[in-house]
Amino acid sequence: MKIRQLFDYETWTYTYLIWDETTKEAAVIDSVLEQVNRDMQHITELGLTVKYLLETHIHADHITGAGPLREKTGAKIVIHKNSGSKCADILTSENDVLTLGTQEIRIIHTPGHTDNDSTYLIKGAAFTGDTLLIRDCGRTDFQLGNTQALYQSITQKLFTLPEETVIFPAHDYEGLSQSTIAEEKAFNIRIGANKSFEEFSNIMDNLMLPDPKRIHIAVPGNLACGNVKTNQKA
Amino acid sequence: MKIRQLFDYETWTYTYLIWDETTKEAAVIDSVLEQVNRDMQHITELGLTVKYLLETHIHADHITGAGPLREKTGAKIVIHKNSGSKCADILTSENDVLTLGTQEIRIIHTPGHTDNDSTYLIKGAAFTGDTLLIRDCGRTDFQLGNTQALYQSITQKLFTLPEETVIFPAHDYEGLSQSTIAEEKAFNIRIGANKSFEEFSNIMDNLMLPDPKRIHIAVPGNLACGNVKTNQKA
Repeated sequence: MKIRQLFDYETWTYTYLIWDETTKEAAVIDSVLEQVNRDMQHITELGLTVKYLLETHIHADHITGAGPLREKTGAKIVIHKNSGSKCADILTSENDVLTLGTQEIRIIHTPGHTDNDSTYLIKGAAFTGDTLLIRDCGRTDFQLGNTQALYQSITQKLFTLPEETVIFPAHDYEGLSQSTIAEEKAFNIRIGANKSFEEFSNIMDNLMLPDPKRIHIAVPGNLACGNVKTNQKA
Repeated sequence: MKIRQLFDYETWTYTYLIWDETTKEAAVIDSVLEQVNRDMQHITELGLTVKYLLETHIHADHITGAGPLREKTGAKIVIHKNSGSKCADILTSENDVLTLGTQEIRIIHTPGHTDNDSTYLIKGAAFTGDTLLIRDCGRTDFQLGNTQALYQSITQKLFTLPEETVIFPAHDYEGLSQSTIAEEKAFNIRIGANKSFEEFSNIMDNLMLPDPKRIHIAVPGNLACGNVKTNQKA
């Protein structure tokens, strides 16, 4: 499996283009509306056939490019069934498996940041969305976020993956690009080093973060698969 | 060989932390002064012993963190002999080889952006500095830049590497993280698709770029290996 990491500087979002080398079947994970042309150019140059547009959850901080990418490629939009999406093609549940050429993509339901987060597990790589970030994790104070669910998702599902599993998150704010399960178990500042739920909860309850400035356009925009008119950069 | 890509948002610079899994011997390629603490934290957490601080050239757009990293790790600063550096520990020439655990790092002299550019070639990965960027290349209008030398470096040295060689550049401005020799031969907008020297030269002579805003502090700062007091972010 080939993995190409792409970044949107405006929203600090990582998009991933992944493909099976043999068949050139591809998936785009967490695209960004404003980067659709960049992503399409890459897809064309690499000679890929996009089969899936995988969303890790309904984002609050940017609008997905999945709708426009579906129009251009014919790929299917995939998101967890809890999302309430009316425009996705495939609504997933825990342990569903998709195939990409000779590869398997396994869905792990990892709620907590929202109620509809999926981690996509592909041959030693875990695309963790906002559930597990590098030395960090997603917030739990809106969109049906739930600190206890996030603690369970990370400690019971992600931290039980093989230690060498590579973590590819949906965001980073420090210039970090990837991690491993072993590293996050040891060094994640919110939940690593065997922190108890009480310790984790205490940290999460005191983050004092402002709402994402685009939440009021991003959530409805993402429920519409990004098929919206917007002037995000203004 | 493990590769961890790190990014500095202020100067759009990629730093690379690479290490041999067996011995944990590591090198840092093109560090950034303001990110030394972040990089040291990663080095410590990963349990690495830094042996080399590899500079691809004397940068004009940011100040290296090599000097401070040498103080903290005891590693040797490596740069091409043409740099005129008085503070580096190893001055390299074409085809020199360094070892990192069980791995070899081969130096390819790829001048043109400056007269002292090195590409570091390590097991199928080429760290190309500003010589070859993704779909782009370094400018040639200062610091002994030379369009003919850059054309030769890219077409005669880099484009003759195996096509699957992965390109890791020193900068990107579009959110792209890596490429391959095959992709750049085909799609590089300045020199790909078999462009003649005349076509390349015509593009490079008409870029009309402003000087990097930090060139007057960056070049002397880098000639001093980053051992300078600065308030770069102001």
